[in-house]
Amino acid sequence: MTPTITLADIRQAAAGIAGHVQATPCTRSQTLSQLTGTTLWLKFENLQFTSSFKERGACWKLSRLDAGERRRGIIAMSAGNHAQGVAYHARRLGIPATIVMPRNTPYVKVRYTEEHGARVLLEGRSLEEAGVSAREIAEREHLVFVHPYDDPDIIAGQGTIALEMLATAPDLDCLVVPVGGGGLVSGIAVAARALRPSIEVIGVETALYPALKSALEGDDRTCGGDTLAEGIAVAAPGRLTLALMREHVNEVLLVDEDQLERAVSLLLNVEKTVVEGAGSAGLAALLQYPERFRGRRVGVVLSGGNMDPRLLAAILTRDLVRAGRITRVRIIISDVPGQIARIATAVARLQANFLDLQHQRIFTSLPARDSYLDITLETRDRGHLDEVLRDLRAEGYDVRVLAD
Amino acid sequence: MTPTITLADIRQAAAGIAGHVQATPCTRSQTLSQLTGTTLWLKFENLQFTSSFKERGACWKLSRLDAGERRRGIIAMSAGNHAQGVAYHARRLGIPATIVMPRNTPYVKVRYTEEHGARVLLEGRSLEEAGVSAREIAEREHLVFVHPYDDPDIIAGQGTIALEMLATAPDLDCLVVPVGGGGLVSGIAVAARALRPSIEVIGVETALYPALKSALEGDDRTCGGDTLAEGIAVAAPGRLTLALMREHVNEVLLVDEDQLERAVSLLLNVEKTVVEGAGSAGLAALLQYPERFRGRRVGVVLSGGNMDPRLLAAILTRDLVRAGRITRVRIIISDVPGQIARIATAVARLQANFLDLQHQRIFTSLPARDSYLDITLETRDRGHLDEVLRDLRAEGYDVRVLAD
Repeated sequence: MTPTITLADIRQAAAGIAGHVQATPCTRSQTLSQLTGTTLWLKFENLQFTSSFKERGACWKLSRLDAGERRRGIIAMSAGNHAQGVAYHARRLGIPATIVMPRNTPYVKVRYTEEHGARVLLEGRSLEEAGVSAREIAEREHLVFVHPYDDPDIIAGQGTIALEMLATAPDLDCLVVPVGGGGLVSGIAVAARALRPSIEVIGVETALYPALKSALEGDDRTCGGDTLAEGIAVAAPGRLTLALMREHVNEVLLVDEDQLERAVSLLLNVEKTVVEGAGSAGLAALLQYPERFRGRRVGVVLSGGNMDPRLLAAILTRDLVRAGRITRVRIIISDVPGQIARIATAVARLQANFLDLQHQRIFTSLPARDSYLDITLETRDRGHLDEVLRDLRAEGYDVRVLAD
Repeated sequence: MTPTITLADIRQAAAGIAGHVQATPCTRSQTLSQLTGTTLWLKFENLQFTSSFKERGACWKLSRLDAGERRRGIIAMSAGNHAQGVAYHARRLGIPATIVMPRNTPYVKVRYTEEHGARVLLEGRSLEEAGVSAREIAEREHLVFVHPYDDPDIIAGQGTIALEMLATAPDLDCLVVPVGGGGLVSGIAVAARALRPSIEVIGVETALYPALKSALEGDDRTCGGDTLAEGIAVAAPGRLTLALMREHVNEVLLVDEDQLERAVSLLLNVEKTVVEGAGSAGLAALLQYPERFRGRRVGVVLSGGNMDPRLLAAILTRDLVRAGRITRVRIIISDVPGQIARIATAVARLQANFLDLQHQRIFTSLPARDSYLDITLETRDRGHLDEVLRDLRAEGYDVRVLAD
């Protein structure tokens, strides 16, 4: 029989974890409310010590272990937020922790987890293989396996977020929550709908991994691909979480990569906060389905902040391209001396910068005397770019802006 | 006579602005305490609505204007945080606002300010010229000039930060505060030392603009250069603020660009918060002068969050270079077919990526049959990079890592 989770369980979890995890801020965003046409409350779970909600479930699960289990220790499989949440609370509680990660896990993630005092084992070439190893080691060493989502204590822990959100904003019409394995949304849905039966709970998956939507609607969509929301790139929901989601989640929305990227960028630029791709899925849903939310009081869970700096830098740079601050242009020049000097002078006159310059004269479809000059320009804004382009054209050049 | 500012003035300002500016979070940072050897409290003024402390002074100054002044309107000169703070609170109070900015101000800053309902005038080629214009327009149009720092109401407004910090952490040993014109540190020093006479107040300037240190020590250091901390790149402190700083500020520390950059990066990666260069000067001082602060209870004001996305992207990318995730290497290859294929195969075998590849065979000091291949490699971490380099050397190649 599937265990049932009730509001009482979640209240018990809240009492158990109080003082050991952050009661993160839950604040109304004026600018994003305006942008989305909603009254928008954000729950900043990216501000947990290990930067994700995973601590709540981990903290509660570990604090429920008996003396023998604590002595033998625990094991978990994760290369991400669950690893750090489990390692941190295990050390706090004096429980030996083993974390199994796939062999190609970036060293920085290994180090962060080791810094929390955990033993890290690198096993297998994928998360699946690492999971199999973790189960084997758990059996062999008599360790308690701490599942990232399919466990009633984990789910009850995550559900404490809803108690805090409704204490701050009791009249919310709906909660929008990222879904990977479903632990977060299950716990939140149980608590929220018990406290406020009229509330809608909406799960959000990346369109590349529509595992829950597929399971609920009985079809067979494929999961796969590189997503900004790697934290919710899960190919199948849990057994227990699926049963809870069937009962308590009103709808599942799928979000596209461009909306995830836009959400990350808005949170960084407007809220000055770093949210990882998976953590921004809720805001991405508001951006992608504005009519679904307009005029309503919406609570969005920003579930984590462990964003890869390389991806963050790429998102910021693409914003600059969209804003007309970085632009690639191609200029056709004839093969006579002084062309590049004239162009560089025109660009300098308006105080624009060259970021890159390539003169390509062999492989062109142009007449033999002509060639391409490709330049990457940095300008103050789109208006400044337009001035530079106008000046270059006034000098008689054929200038084209290159896409991408 | 120089007006004096007292704790009573600052308390009055606090009552006046309550509910109109954010009482921003002030929290203890576990990780950064550990890193700096202090007990570190951070005050998140970057989370004000317009992302800086400037709102406090602006709000208080504007709310003190009489009916006639409000009707005629106000004027300010700023291309930065003061512009947005003034524009936002002027609109809220129904006061017509004019903001003068230099002509080359990026359009995004003009737009943000216009979106708060202000009239923006682009005047002059520098901040100085824009300031002269603003004074002339103020005179001509009978507008109240709102100075960014040299004004008792502005200073009293900024001082309210100290009341909030000491309410949260009453036993702080010192406060570390960025200094540009000195409005922020003056107000904070007056309030903090009245409430807690033993507290030290330390001002931080960028080493490129040591205007206050120079004035206090009576020497004549030059100010100038491009700094990450443009918000405090001020060539001379105010008259009123200088008098207050002489009396109440214990010491001025100068921070270097690399420490500013490191502070911005740490705040982003550890605290998941976007702080601009000037706003990170306090943390930079702790990083640069660790012995000055070790073992003490330190409050640092993160004064603003309006960071240029281009600079932020550059900082993130440089972090990746330091972490061994992006690396430029030069390989000497002989001019026979198949060299690039062999190298690319070795790189692919270990699942590293090429970000850039340039084959340079004309301008080298090498024997005529040899040439350079410069590649930019992306790897998981330094260990992974070392494996790739080892493999390439095992293939018999001369491989060098290029600095910068």
